[in-house]
Amino acid sequence: MTRWKLVIEYDGTGFVGWQRQDNGPSVQAAVERAVKAFCGEDVTVWCAGRTDAGVHALGQVAHLDIEKATTARTVRDAINQHLKPLPVAILSAEPVDAHFHARLSARRRLYRYRIVNRRAPLALGLNRAWHVPYALDAAAMHDAAQALVGKHDFSTFRASLCQAKSPVKTLDELSVARQGDVIEVTARARSFLHHQVRNMVGTLSLVGRGKWSRDDVGEALAARDRRKGGPTAPPEGLYLVEVGY
Amino acid sequence: MTRWKLVIEYDGTGFVGWQRQDNGPSVQAAVERAVKAFCGEDVTVWCAGRTDAGVHALGQVAHLDIEKATTARTVRDAINQHLKPLPVAILSAEPVDAHFHARLSARRRLYRYRIVNRRAPLALGLNRAWHVPYALDAAAMHDAAQALVGKHDFSTFRASLCQAKSPVKTLDELSVARQGDVIEVTARARSFLHHQVRNMVGTLSLVGRGKWSRDDVGEALAARDRRKGGPTAPPEGLYLVEVGY
Repeated sequence: MTRWKLVIEYDGTGFVGWQRQDNGPSVQAAVERAVKAFCGEDVTVWCAGRTDAGVHALGQVAHLDIEKATTARTVRDAINQHLKPLPVAILSAEPVDAHFHARLSARRRLYRYRIVNRRAPLALGLNRAWHVPYALDAAAMHDAAQALVGKHDFSTFRASLCQAKSPVKTLDELSVARQGDVIEVTARARSFLHHQVRNMVGTLSLVGRGKWSRDDVGEALAARDRRKGGPTAPPEGLYLVEVGY
Repeated sequence: MTRWKLVIEYDGTGFVGWQRQDNGPSVQAAVERAVKAFCGEDVTVWCAGRTDAGVHALGQVAHLDIEKATTARTVRDAINQHLKPLPVAILSAEPVDAHFHARLSARRRLYRYRIVNRRAPLALGLNRAWHVPYALDAAAMHDAAQALVGKHDFSTFRASLCQAKSPVKTLDELSVARQGDVIEVTARARSFLHHQVRNMVGTLSLVGRGKWSRDDVGEALAARDRRKGGPTAPPEGLYLVEVGY
């Protein structure tokens, strides 16, 4: 038996999320079905970050165990073959130590959140970004974001369904940059609470619109109360970019 | 009556192309229908570059005449309102001189062609790029592309259906650059022949693969014969980026 580490890209639009669920197609079930079609084995695929419905991945990481003796190239190509025509692609497969765990071994997660800030609706960016039609001040958003960087109790930005044991996390980076109509928010931490990135982005959008100041963001954080935070930004702007080990 | 210049973004995937046709939905018909819904007028919308089925636009330009007295903001927002949920967006509308013609007045067209060069199939890039699974040498492609820059008879890169009076065009720029797995080809000229960019990219892909040299590209050009050129790259990688006046 070999444990394999997979790096996976997907368009989350048509999925109920990463995790297998009864109410619709999941990325996890799609990969597990493709593995079964390839080697006949019933496997469970474990991921680093359980993305929600509509959230995308450029570099999700997952692991699974396969009995059949095979090569990295075959694992990647055979799963991809059986994933067609779904918008899910195994970018790489590599054999790893039996102690490797996609979620538990991860030391760093990088998410990017994409906002298209213009009056006109999205065309090529449909389902790939959050469309914000009113003007956002990205520099003010970046400044306010710095109030969230560091080790804090992030209860204000935590979904009620979050299963993490503790709301205390260390946010290593939260930066906001504009290029033309596109505003990208980059968030980096060892791990995040459920909806943390989307709740932080939604809160920063209030700053970008001039409704909140940097101090308001700091006070919301200090309140440790979800009701004091801003709205949850929609899933279609979020990308799991990279997981480091 | 006012003549309006529109800048339009669209995802060409579900369309038979810009031009109104009997065999399926076109971008032109979608915009004309939205204008009719907005002001009740039967208009013809003229564009700068008649993109083929599957080809995208970030900045297509078109013009049309509207009798109804209105503002630029209303023209843009009302057409967008009636275009929903199609992946077509009017980025801007501005009143122009009655002599302005989107196609005939254009002095510069900028196209970009996107290749994803990796073994794994496309997921987020599905229908948005040409997937080339074998290794391409982008530097060699860029070098060979320079053999095509300048004023030439481009018959070798011209579709048989092309309606242009002359096959002689001046290609101002043809550059190829790689960033990670993505290779972008940038093509700039006053105007292009039908399929010219896709035929040039298909030919350059032979160089990238090591099958053709820069001299082979020069000889193909000199032959002025479509049968001496390389294959036509698929439409989904092509974007009309900008039209200058």
